[in-house]
Amino acid sequence: MSDKSSSNAMWGGRFAAGPDAIMEAINASIGFDRRLAKQDIDGSRAHAAMLAAQGIITDSDANAIREGLLTVLSEIESDTFPWRVELEDIHMNVEARLKEIVGEPAGRLHTGRSRNDQVAVDFRLWVRDQCDAADGALKALIEALIGQAEEGADWVMPGFTHLQVAQPVTWGHHMMAYVEMFARDRARFADARARMNESPLGAAALAGTSFPLDRQMTAEALGFDRPTANSLDAVAARDFALEYLGAASICAMHLSRLAEELVIWSSAQFRFVAMSDRWSTGSSIMPQKRNPDAAELLRAKIGRIFGANVALMTIMKGLPLTYSKDMQEDKEQTFDAADSLMLGLAAMTGMVADMKGRPDDLRVAAAMGFSTATDLADWLVRELGLPFRDAHHITGALVSMAEENGCDLPELSLDQMQSVHAGITTAIFDVLGVDNSVASRTSYGGTAPVNVRAQIARWKKDLS
Amino acid sequence: MSDKSSSNAMWGGRFAAGPDAIMEAINASIGFDRRLAKQDIDGSRAHAAMLAAQGIITDSDANAIREGLLTVLSEIESDTFPWRVELEDIHMNVEARLKEIVGEPAGRLHTGRSRNDQVAVDFRLWVRDQCDAADGALKALIEALIGQAEEGADWVMPGFTHLQVAQPVTWGHHMMAYVEMFARDRARFADARARMNESPLGAAALAGTSFPLDRQMTAEALGFDRPTANSLDAVAARDFALEYLGAASICAMHLSRLAEELVIWSSAQFRFVAMSDRWSTGSSIMPQKRNPDAAELLRAKIGRIFGANVALMTIMKGLPLTYSKDMQEDKEQTFDAADSLMLGLAAMTGMVADMKGRPDDLRVAAAMGFSTATDLADWLVRELGLPFRDAHHITGALVSMAEENGCDLPELSLDQMQSVHAGITTAIFDVLGVDNSVASRTSYGGTAPVNVRAQIARWKKDLS
Amino acid sequence: MSDKSSSNAMWGGRFAAGPDAIMEAINASIGFDRRLAKQDIDGSRAHAAMLAAQGIITDSDANAIREGLLTVLSEIESDTFPWRVELEDIHMNVEARLKEIVGEPAGRLHTGRSRNDQVAVDFRLWVRDQCDAADGALKALIEALIGQAEEGADWVMPGFTHLQVAQPVTWGHHMMAYVEMFARDRARFADARARMNESPLGAAALAGTSFPLDRQMTAEALGFDRPTANSLDAVAARDFALEYLGAASICAMHLSRLAEELVIWSSAQFRFVAMSDRWSTGSSIMPQKRNPDAAELLRAKIGRIFGANVALMTIMKGLPLTYSKDMQEDKEQTFDAADSLMLGLAAMTGMVADMKGRPDDLRVAAAMGFSTATDLADWLVRELGLPFRDAHHITGALVSMAEENGCDLPELSLDQMQSVHAGITTAIFDVLGVDNSVASRTSYGGTAPVNVRAQIARWKKDLS
Amino acid sequence: MSDKSSSNAMWGGRFAAGPDAIMEAINASIGFDRRLAKQDIDGSRAHAAMLAAQGIITDSDANAIREGLLTVLSEIESDTFPWRVELEDIHMNVEARLKEIVGEPAGRLHTGRSRNDQVAVDFRLWVRDQCDAADGALKALIEALIGQAEEGADWVMPGFTHLQVAQPVTWGHHMMAYVEMFARDRARFADARARMNESPLGAAALAGTSFPLDRQMTAEALGFDRPTANSLDAVAARDFALEYLGAASICAMHLSRLAEELVIWSSAQFRFVAMSDRWSTGSSIMPQKRNPDAAELLRAKIGRIFGANVALMTIMKGLPLTYSKDMQEDKEQTFDAADSLMLGLAAMTGMVADMKGRPDDLRVAAAMGFSTATDLADWLVRELGLPFRDAHHITGALVSMAEENGCDLPELSLDQMQSVHAGITTAIFDVLGVDNSVASRTSYGGTAPVNVRAQIARWKKDLS
Repeated sequence: MSDKSSSNAMWGGRFAAGPDAIMEAINASIGFDRRLAKQDIDGSRAHAAMLAAQGIITDSDANAIREGLLTVLSEIESDTFPWRVELEDIHMNVEARLKEIVGEPAGRLHTGRSRNDQVAVDFRLWVRDQCDAADGALKALIEALIGQAEEGADWVMPGFTHLQVAQPVTWGHHMMAYVEMFARDRARFADARARMNESPLGAAALAGTSFPLDRQMTAEALGFDRPTANSLDAVAARDFALEYLGAASICAMHLSRLAEELVIWSSAQFRFVAMSDRWSTGSSIMPQKRNPDAAELLRAKIGRIFGANVALMTIMKGLPLTYSKDMQEDKEQTFDAADSLMLGLAAMTGMVADMKGRPDDLRVAAAMGFSTATDLADWLVRELGLPFRDAHHITGALVSMAEENGCDLPELSLDQMQSVHAGITTAIFDVLGVDNSVASRTSYGGTAPVNVRAQIARWKKDLS
Repeated sequence: MSDKSSSNAMWGGRFAAGPDAIMEAINASIGFDRRLAKQDIDGSRAHAAMLAAQGIITDSDANAIREGLLTVLSEIESDTFPWRVELEDIHMNVEARLKEIVGEPAGRLHTGRSRNDQVAVDFRLWVRDQCDAADGALKALIEALIGQAEEGADWVMPGFTHLQVAQPVTWGHHMMAYVEMFARDRARFADARARMNESPLGAAALAGTSFPLDRQMTAEALGFDRPTANSLDAVAARDFALEYLGAASICAMHLSRLAEELVIWSSAQFRFVAMSDRWSTGSSIMPQKRNPDAAELLRAKIGRIFGANVALMTIMKGLPLTYSKDMQEDKEQTFDAADSLMLGLAAMTGMVADMKGRPDDLRVAAAMGFSTATDLADWLVRELGLPFRDAHHITGALVSMAEENGCDLPELSLDQMQSVHAGITTAIFDVLGVDNSVASRTSYGGTAPVNVRAQIARWKKDLS
Repeated sequence: MSDKSSSNAMWGGRFAAGPDAIMEAINASIGFDRRLAKQDIDGSRAHAAMLAAQGIITDSDANAIREGLLTVLSEIESDTFPWRVELEDIHMNVEARLKEIVGEPAGRLHTGRSRNDQVAVDFRLWVRDQCDAADGALKALIEALIGQAEEGADWVMPGFTHLQVAQPVTWGHHMMAYVEMFARDRARFADARARMNESPLGAAALAGTSFPLDRQMTAEALGFDRPTANSLDAVAARDFALEYLGAASICAMHLSRLAEELVIWSSAQFRFVAMSDRWSTGSSIMPQKRNPDAAELLRAKIGRIFGANVALMTIMKGLPLTYSKDMQEDKEQTFDAADSLMLGLAAMTGMVADMKGRPDDLRVAAAMGFSTATDLADWLVRELGLPFRDAHHITGALVSMAEENGCDLPELSLDQMQSVHAGITTAIFDVLGVDNSVASRTSYGGTAPVNVRAQIARWKKDLS
Repeated sequence: MSDKSSSNAMWGGRFAAGPDAIMEAINASIGFDRRLAKQDIDGSRAHAAMLAAQGIITDSDANAIREGLLTVLSEIESDTFPWRVELEDIHMNVEARLKEIVGEPAGRLHTGRSRNDQVAVDFRLWVRDQCDAADGALKALIEALIGQAEEGADWVMPGFTHLQVAQPVTWGHHMMAYVEMFARDRARFADARARMNESPLGAAALAGTSFPLDRQMTAEALGFDRPTANSLDAVAARDFALEYLGAASICAMHLSRLAEELVIWSSAQFRFVAMSDRWSTGSSIMPQKRNPDAAELLRAKIGRIFGANVALMTIMKGLPLTYSKDMQEDKEQTFDAADSLMLGLAAMTGMVADMKGRPDDLRVAAAMGFSTATDLADWLVRELGLPFRDAHHITGALVSMAEENGCDLPELSLDQMQSVHAGITTAIFDVLGVDNSVASRTSYGGTAPVNVRAQIARWKKDLS
C-alpha cells in the first residue's frame, strides 16, 4: 500500500496523472480567485503606501511596488497576464509577476502581512462591491415597477388569496407591493455592507504583528470605516459573506414570487399580461407561442442562490478558529450566487419594463366570484350599524342567492336583497362595482388609485 | 371512487377516523399558534381603541371588548382557557370566548380587519420579541466571554490555522474574537427588528378598507414605527421571518464554532479547558469522565435552526400574492428555531461562565512547533533590513536546523544561527519566547495583552 | 465569574431556574424519545431472550424481564406510565420502571449492551416502520390516482410546457404520470428499508463485547436481515435516517408538484377540477368560495420535510466516530418529517379520491393555441415524406395564417393550406382534432386512451 | 417605458449591451450542456438506427446521419467543433453541424422526437455514467481503507465517544467502519442507477407520437433496461438527479467525518497519523509544518454537494407538469456536485493510501482515561455473577480510587481492589490491559483483531 506505483494505480480514470494532479485540482484556487485581482492589487497598493508612511519600507520601494502593481493590473485587464496554476492563488501570481517587473522591492511588500489577512481583505472588498451592485440593480428594478404602476395605477384586477379571487385591487397597487419588497432587499444589502465594512488588513497571519502598522490608514485608503478590532476574528470570520448570501436569498425569493405570477399571468387561461418577445422563446412550429422562459429561469434562481447559502453555512459549521482551508470554498459559492442575482435582477427589470398588462382582461377577472362581497358587508356595518359578524352572515346569504340565480351581486334586485335584510336601500348598489370598490379603499396603504399615485410620488422622490 | 365509504377505507391506520380528521390535522393551527395569544390580544385591544377613537364603534363597546380581552388573557395565562380545536386558530378561539364574555360587542371587533392582517400583526410582534430576546441573551454571552478574557488576558495559548499551531496568542484575545462575532450577531438582530417594525394592522384582507381607520394610532400603540405602506405586501410578506431566521442561523454558526473548540479543547489530548460538571455528563462506570454533552448539542443546533430557515425559504419560493395557506407553516419553523437559539445561547453562556482554562497546558502547547518562527523572520526584516521574502527563507532554514537537532528555536546557539545568516545577533533571542512574542503584537487588533485589556475596557463601556 | 449566584443571575427570563434547568432542557430527550418506547421494549425483550439462550443470564431472570417489559409497555400504551424527566431518556425510564416491577433481574438486562447500541436499534426500528408506513400510504395514493385515471382515461386536456398549452393529452395519462413518480418513491423507501435492515444490537458501547452474544438471534427476533458487521459503524451511522429523509423529500417534491397543479387547476381562470368541500375551506362571506387549503399546505410540506433533511445532514457533517451527543438531534427531525409525510400522503389521497375533473372545460382548453400543430407536421412527414425540419416550417406558416385569420387550424380551407404546400390533401383534417390527436399517440408510453387503459391494467395487476 | 432606448438605459454596468445580451446570458445553456455531447450523439445515433429499422426514414439517410454524428463527435473530442452560442444548446449545435456535414438527411433525424425527450435522455445517460464513476471511485477508496486495516489490524487505539476516550479499539476496526459506510454509499448509487435506467426517448414533446417508434430498440441500444411507461413523466421527472445528489450528499457526509478525524488526528496534540506531504501544504517559514489542506477541503465538499442538492430540490418544488424552463438549472448543479464528489473520492483515496498511522502514539492514547473500565465490569458480571448494574457501580468505585491515587487501573493492588469487592481475584488483571481488552471483544462485529482480519478477508472476496 505504501508502494507509490500501486497506490497510484488506484485512481485511474480522469486522475490518471496521479496524486499531484488531484492535489492541484483540489487545492489550487487560481481558477476562480483571479476574480479578486482588482481587489488584491488595491489592497497591496494601500499596504505598500502605508509601509512607506510608517517608515517600514522606503518611499522608492513603495513607489516601485505601487507602479508595478498598476502594470500587473493592466496586464490582467488586457488579458496578457501570464497566469501560472503552480503558483496556486491570485496572491502569489500577482506577487511573482511583480517581482519580475520591479525586482527586489517586491520581496518587501509582504512585510507585516499574510495571505490570511490578504484574502480576507480581497474577499470583503469583492462582497462589498456586490452589495453596491445589488443596490443599483434593485433601484433599476424598482423604477421599472414604478413605471408599470404609473401605467396602470387605476387598472382594476383581482386580488388573490389562495389563487382565488378575493377582492378587486389595482394593477398599480400590485406593482407597488413588489416595490416595498425590493426596497427592503436594498436595505438588507445596505446593512450588510455597513457591517462588513471593516478592514482586516494588518491582522497578519492571525495574531497581529510587531511592525508599527497604521491600520487606520489602509482602512481609509480602501474605503473601510475602520480596521477590525480583533486579529483572530479578522481572518476567521465569514459571516459577512453569509449575510450577503442571506440578503441575496431573500431577494431571490421575492424574484421567484413575481416570476411565478408572470408565468401564471401569461398562461392562456389567465391572459393578464403579454410578455415581450425579448424575454420569451417561441417555437418554430407554433409561432404564436410565447414561452415565458426568462420568468421560469428567474423563478429557479432562488434554488441556485440559496443553494450557495446552504453550502457556505454547512462549510462554516463547526470550524475552529482561525483559518481553515475549508474556507477556500467560500468564493465560488459567493461568485456564483452574485452572478445569478445580478443576472436575475437585470432580466427581471427588463421583463417588467417590457411587459404589457391587459387592462380589459384584468377588469373582467376582477369582477368574478362576487369579489365585492366585503364591500357589501362593510356597507351594512357602516350604514346600518350592524355588528361586523352579523353583516358577514347577511352578505353570505346574498351571495348564495346570487349564485343560485346564476347572477352577479349587482344583478340582484332590491326586493331580493330586502328579503334577506329589510334595511338595505338602493344606495348599496354604489358599492358593488369594482371601480367603486377599489376607489373606496383609501385607508393608508389601501388599493385606491389615489393611494397608489401618492405612493408612486413618495417613491419617486425617495429614489431621486 | 366517488363512494365515500370506499375512499375512506383507503387511508387506514392512524387516519382511520377518515378525511375530516386528516383535514383537521393538516389545517388547524391552534396546536401551535396559541403561542401568539398575547400578541393577538394586544393587537385586538389596540384595534378596538382605535375603532372607538375614529367613531367606528362606540366607546362602551370598545371598553367592553378591551376589558373582555384582558379576561381572556388572564384565562390563558392561568391555563383555564377552554381551547377548542374546531375553532382552528388562535384568532377564532379568542374571539369566540370574548363573545361568551361580553356578548354582542364582540361581533364589532373585527370591523375593518381580517384574519390576514391580524395574523401578520401577531406573528410580527412575536418575531420582534424574539429579536429583543436574542439581543439580551447575546449580551449575557458577551459578558461571560469578557469575563473569561479578563481572567486570562495574558495566558499564552496556541493560535491555530488548519488546527496546527501557527503563532502564540492569548486566551483573552481568543475569547474577544467571539465577542466580535456575537456583537455582529446582535447588530443583525437589531437591523432585522428595525426593518420589520411596521404595522400591517389595517391592511384588512389584502386591499385596505373603506373604514376610516387610523393606522398610525394602532401602530403606535403596538410599538411599531409606522404602518406598512402597501396592503398587499402587508399580508403577503414573510421576509421579516426569513431575516430573523438568517440572523439566527449565522449566530448558530458562531455557536457551532465555539462549541467545536470546546469539544476539542476538553479532549484528553488537548486539555486546554475543564468544562464544569454542570454542562457535562458522566458515566457511572468511568466517574472521571466528563462528556461535553452541552457543547455537542450546541454544535448541532445550527442544523436545527438553519433547517428551519431552509424550510421557510422553500415554502415561500414561488408563492403568488397575497396570502396562501402554505404560509401557515411559517410559525412552527420559527418557534422551533427561536426556542433552539435561546436555549443554545443560555447554555453557551453558562458553559463559558463556568469553564476553567488551563493556563499551564495552554502555555506548553503554545511553544510547540516553532510557533515563534514569524517573530524571528520579522526580526530579520526589522533589524537587518532584509526583504520579507528573504527573511522567510532564512527562517525556514533555521527551523529545519532546529528540527534536525531535535531542539526548539531558542535552543539553537548563536553560532548555529550565524551559520545561516551572519548578521544575526544575540538580540534575536529576545523575540523567540512566547511571552515576548504575544507582547510584541501591538498593532491595532493584535494579540498583545495590552491590546486585549484595551478591548475589554472598550466593550465593558459599550455594554454598560 | 465562578460565583454561582452571579453567573446564575445572567440567564434571566425563562431560564430563571438556573443552569440545571437549562442543562436539563438541552440534554434530556425523554420529551421526544418516548415515541421509541415500543421499539425499545421489543429490543430489550429480544436481548433478554438471547442472554438466556446463551447462558449469560438465567431463564427465570429472562422470563421475569420479558414479562415485566410487557407490563411496562401496557402501562405506556394505557398512559399510566410514570415518566420521569430526571431519568433523561426512554431507556432509563423503562429500565428504572422495570426494576420497580421485577427487582434484581432488571439489573442484568443491560449485560453486553450499552445505550449506544440500544438507541441505534430503537431508532432503526422506528425508521424502518416509517418506510413501511410510507409504502402503504403511497399504495393508497396510487390507487386513488388510478381511480381518477379510469374515470377520465379519454378526457382530453391540455398538455403543458412552460404552463403554455403544447399538445392535447388525456386526463388519465396525466394521472398515470404521477403513478409513475409515486411508484418510484415507493421503491426508494423499499431500497432504504432493505439497506438499513441490519441489527446494531450487540455492538455495545462501540467496541463489541466479550460476552458470547448471539447477534444473529436478536437480529432475527427483531426482523433484521443480519447483524451489522462493524461495531463502530453500528453506533456511529445515521445514513439510514438521511436516506429515509432523502426519499421522503423527493416524495414531498412530487406531492408539491401535484399540489401546485391542483391549486392552479382549481382557480377561476383554469376551472379544470372541482376540489371537494372536505379539502377546501370557505368563507362566511363568500360561501361559493373554495380555497384549496389542503393542497397549499401539502405544497408547503416539502419545506418542512426537506428542512429536516438539511438539519440532519448539517448535524452529521464532520462528526468524528463514534457516538457524539449531536446525534441526539436526529430524532425530532425525523419524527417531524415522518409525521408530515404521512399526513401529506393521507391528505393527498383524500383530495385526489374526492376531486372531480371537469371534462368539458378540459376539452375546450385542450384545443386552444393550435395545440395540434405537431400532428399536422407529423402528417406532412408521414404522408408527404418531407424532412421533419421542413414540415415544421410549413406548419409554422399555417399556424401564422390561422392566427392572422383569427381562426383555428381545422377552420383553414384546403385552398388556404395548399397555398402553403401544394401536396396537402383533405386527409389532413383527420389529424387536426384533439380526439384524433390523442388517439394517434400510440407509441409506448404515449397519451392515447388505449395506452392509458393498458397502463391502468398493468398497475392494477402489480398492486394486487 | 416601452421606449427601447430608455429601458435599455436602465441596465447599465455589465449588461450595457442591452436586453438581448441579458436574455442570452440567462437562457443559453450551451456554456454548460456541451458536456452532454457524447450522450447527445449516442442518443441520436440510436434514434436514427431505429427510425430506419421501422421504415420511418431510409437506411441510407440513417447511415448518413450516423456517420455524420461520428464526425461531429470527433470534432468535439479534438476540440475543432465550431460552437455557436446563438444556437443556444448542445442539441441545436450538433444538429446544425450535422446538416453542414450530411445535408438534407439531417432534417429527418428529429422525426418522432423533441428536445424535451432528447435532453431527458442525455441527462439521464450522464447521471447514469456518474453512478458508475462513483462506484469505481468508492471501490478504490474501500481498497485503500482495507489496505490501512491490514497494516494495523491489531494496532490498539482509543475508541471515542464525545471525542473522549471510551474503550480501546483497533486501527483496523476503525478503518473497516468506513468500509461499511462507503459500501452502503456504493449500494445507494447502484440502486439509483437501476431506478433511473429507463429510456425517455420516444416520449417526444410530452405526449408520445403517432410514428411507429420502437422504443424498446433505442432503450436497448443505449443500455437502458426498458422505455419509460408514461411520456409526461418521461420529460417532467428529475427525481433521478435528486436521488443521485442525495446519494452523493450522504457519501460526502461520510467523507466529511473521515476528513474531520484526519484533521484532528494530524494535530500536534493528537499525533495519531502522519499525512503524506502530497496531501499537505507547508509553509516556507515553518518547513516542518504539514497543514492537512486536502482533508480540510474534503470536509468542505459536503457543503458544495449538498448545496447542489438543496438547489435542485428548491428548483423542482411546485413545478407543474411537464417541462418548465426552470429545469434547465438542473445540469450545472449536478455537474458541479459530480465533479466535487469524484475529486473528493480521488483525494481521499490518495490520502488514505499514503497516510501513516503512528502505532506507538495510538497505543499510549488508548490506555488513557481508564479505558478498560468496562472490561473490569464485564469480568465482575461474568466471573462473579453480579448483575450488570451492580458491577458498574463497583467499577466506578475502583476508577475513583485509581484516580485519587493518581494511578491507572492495573496499578491498583489486589488488596485495594478487594477493599471494594471481596470477590475480586488476581485473574482480574488479565482484562485490564488494552491488548487483552481488544482481543476479548470477539462478538460478531467486535473490535478483536481476529474479527478485523475476518472482515478484511470477507471484503476482499466481495471486491474481487
